[in-house]
Amino acid sequence: MDITAVVKRLEAIVGADNVSAAKSDRITHSYDATQQKHLPDVVVYAASVNEVAQVVQLANEVEMPVLPRGAGSGFTGGSLPVYGGIVLVLSRMDRILDIDTENLTAEVEPGVVTATLQREVERLGLFYPPDPASKEFCTLGGNVAECAGGPRCVKYGVTRDYILGLEVVTPTGDIITTGGKTLKNVAGYDLTRLFVGSEGTLGIVTKIIVKLLPKPAAKKTMLVLFKTIDGAARSVSAIIGAKIIPTTLEFLDGATIDCIRGKSSIDLPENCRAALIVEVDGDEDLLDRQMARIREIIEPSGTLAVKVAATDDESEQIWQVRRIVSPSLKQISPDKFNEDIVVPRSKVPDMIRELEKISSEYGVSIVNFGHAGDGNIHVNIMVDLKEEGMKEKVEIVLDRVFGAAVALRGSISGEHGIGTAKMNYLHMELDAATIDYMRRIKTALDPKNILNPGKIFLEKSSGESA
Amino acid sequence: MDITAVVKRLEAIVGADNVSAAKSDRITHSYDATQQKHLPDVVVYAASVNEVAQVVQLANEVEMPVLPRGAGSGFTGGSLPVYGGIVLVLSRMDRILDIDTENLTAEVEPGVVTATLQREVERLGLFYPPDPASKEFCTLGGNVAECAGGPRCVKYGVTRDYILGLEVVTPTGDIITTGGKTLKNVAGYDLTRLFVGSEGTLGIVTKIIVKLLPKPAAKKTMLVLFKTIDGAARSVSAIIGAKIIPTTLEFLDGATIDCIRGKSSIDLPENCRAALIVEVDGDEDLLDRQMARIREIIEPSGTLAVKVAATDDESEQIWQVRRIVSPSLKQISPDKFNEDIVVPRSKVPDMIRELEKISSEYGVSIVNFGHAGDGNIHVNIMVDLKEEGMKEKVEIVLDRVFGAAVALRGSISGEHGIGTAKMNYLHMELDAATIDYMRRIKTALDPKNILNPGKIFLEKSSGESA
Repeated sequence: MDITAVVKRLEAIVGADNVSAAKSDRITHSYDATQQKHLPDVVVYAASVNEVAQVVQLANEVEMPVLPRGAGSGFTGGSLPVYGGIVLVLSRMDRILDIDTENLTAEVEPGVVTATLQREVERLGLFYPPDPASKEFCTLGGNVAECAGGPRCVKYGVTRDYILGLEVVTPTGDIITTGGKTLKNVAGYDLTRLFVGSEGTLGIVTKIIVKLLPKPAAKKTMLVLFKTIDGAARSVSAIIGAKIIPTTLEFLDGATIDCIRGKSSIDLPENCRAALIVEVDGDEDLLDRQMARIREIIEPSGTLAVKVAATDDESEQIWQVRRIVSPSLKQISPDKFNEDIVVPRSKVPDMIRELEKISSEYGVSIVNFGHAGDGNIHVNIMVDLKEEGMKEKVEIVLDRVFGAAVALRGSISGEHGIGTAKMNYLHMELDAATIDYMRRIKTALDPKNILNPGKIFLEKSSGESA
Repeated sequence: MDITAVVKRLEAIVGADNVSAAKSDRITHSYDATQQKHLPDVVVYAASVNEVAQVVQLANEVEMPVLPRGAGSGFTGGSLPVYGGIVLVLSRMDRILDIDTENLTAEVEPGVVTATLQREVERLGLFYPPDPASKEFCTLGGNVAECAGGPRCVKYGVTRDYILGLEVVTPTGDIITTGGKTLKNVAGYDLTRLFVGSEGTLGIVTKIIVKLLPKPAAKKTMLVLFKTIDGAARSVSAIIGAKIIPTTLEFLDGATIDCIRGKSSIDLPENCRAALIVEVDGDEDLLDRQMARIREIIEPSGTLAVKVAATDDESEQIWQVRRIVSPSLKQISPDKFNEDIVVPRSKVPDMIRELEKISSEYGVSIVNFGHAGDGNIHVNIMVDLKEEGMKEKVEIVLDRVFGAAVALRGSISGEHGIGTAKMNYLHMELDAATIDYMRRIKTALDPKNILNPGKIFLEKSSGESA
């Protein structure tokens, strides 16, 4: 069927105003936060589960790919139309349908921005913990698709831990519901968690029931500057070893600090080679005691300065240090590759040492920061792709980085997903039998390979034998 | 292939001492904690993942069902060989392989008894929260298969929330690994959580990596006796409404109390029509304050007595009240049906009222207790199956009970699973499209229907159209 005829039929489903095959709209929906670009044939803005189901049914009929998309802020190409087709934008489905203060749940549409939900529930004394850095613009549908994380996950867990139930349009256009409003539910397979992190390949989420917690009564933030990265790493191990799980345990390595020096109101001296941001939350009376204990634990590790925020403003100043990292790195190196490996937290020092080795071996700058508390390191490979041979070099470096993470019993992705960006590295972590098991699930549920084709599971990745 | 030839080949895999086709062994492995009996053809005691894989490969070759089994303490027939075949007992695989105090994880074989792991990690100041009532004899493999719960799940979550990674033998006899030792991991589909609760139908778990927490510093237990069940239910809502999530919030209804009166050291007066056991844990300094606050919250709801345990012995006495419930009910009514519906916690009073209505309508005694904090009610239908027509009556009553739970947006199973016992009720909660989606997963992964056939997903349940 030619695209004009498909557009006509799409218009009949969602209305003419909500379909566009204009070049400008196609370009706008051809990229995300990676450096990839793939042009869709048509962009559709759906407003209801029935519209989504009908679009998917039509796509099955005409055998055209469908790519669900939220804010397009993903880091691994999870929403990109590698084979063209329909980009199905869900940002119009942005209603908070219910906040249930008796059962501590909320029911939302996928287009709700994460921080919007957080503000609404906090107003009622409740709390939705997952806090990806993009929370001010990313959507909950995308969070579910990628199993988003964030700094608070050390203590509170990731998106998967807060999703109780879903309404989903299947790859063949059926509407199903999974889980529900209860904390316990073992009726059939746990499709809810199968969908979380499945990157839009097994279904399109059209409604989400999340679990909420009581909002912690208070919090306290501390910034610690270290003379060495080993000192920071030793501190992380010592804190956890003392059976304290802070809300956040963020780290910045020396190279990161060099990139942001002078850009925040906090003085970061030249000899500062690592920093930790530690936040604890809970009952007010406990926090001072807990902070004092943490201070005691880390002080033998060679600290340059310890700053405990006395006010919300001071806490905000500390967090600003963390927030300027990504934009600063991007400014220095627009082509930088931002990976998010994860290792068991005790292996963070080993991983950092390995990264330093790789950096000097290949002569590329590698800048690391991230969530030390759960071993999730954002590895930034700072390159200029215009340099000859750099693209090939980056591929080798990535191979070494992922290989080192897996060798330490870690993963090639902690919270960004596999998408198209890491598809060719998946075989480093998962063996052929495991990938095949995943592929069989995809094939059984999406026989025509309509939803998000060209993604992780359907195509044999390069490391596998055919 | 005749059974003698299969036995010979099984002996070649696991050794002659670890295969039995003797009638006595077959009978011993024909039942669980339900009232069903299904005789296997042969019982195999495997000791390693390779043995398990070879047994499954052989079963595929001769097209014989394989039923993985731990302690056989399940409440829904999840380990019963409805179509005969091989019962594959995993209790010899009972080693704790590693307790990692730096990363707060443990690695165990599936035959480890839940309480054994708990004691071992508590010795190191760590904590594995899920606490099914059978924890002294059930195994972690079974806990994973059924997604076991327990009283502490109100605060800490269920088994699924503590499983980080698995080694699994697939239905076709491949060995795969899922997840790992890290808290975050988004490499591919979340097979780990797909396996949790899949009741041995998608794979046989041969290794389990669990997440541990720091052991709470202290705990405090309180028993509250109420004049009415409504008073108890109102208290539960009020506690959660005050943004307090206790470790446990167990309830017993009046009928349950009548069954256990005089059997514990605690006086339970005739006019006591409900009881709550509230436990809080955490920092010692907070507990007294938290208990005082809870007391304040519940006292307007018509309490008869409030007893806060001052010592471990007194706490033990309170918990004994809860522990004698199941054996006492079983003694009174050996044929009793023990269901475990779950409703949003605010709907517990509605559900209890509905149960009272059903009880009086059909003239059968229904006794309820369970985990009020997460809405998980153990509904005990106290019948004598020798009474004429009782079997049919129970079926109608169960239908009404499950219907009421689903109507309140609950589930027909909170923590016991579907197994064979609830298979025919699954369609009340899940629509045909959802069941079909599950069935397609099972068929894709287990094309010959070897693993646990006759269970939830493969067969059309009676409520579906063919």
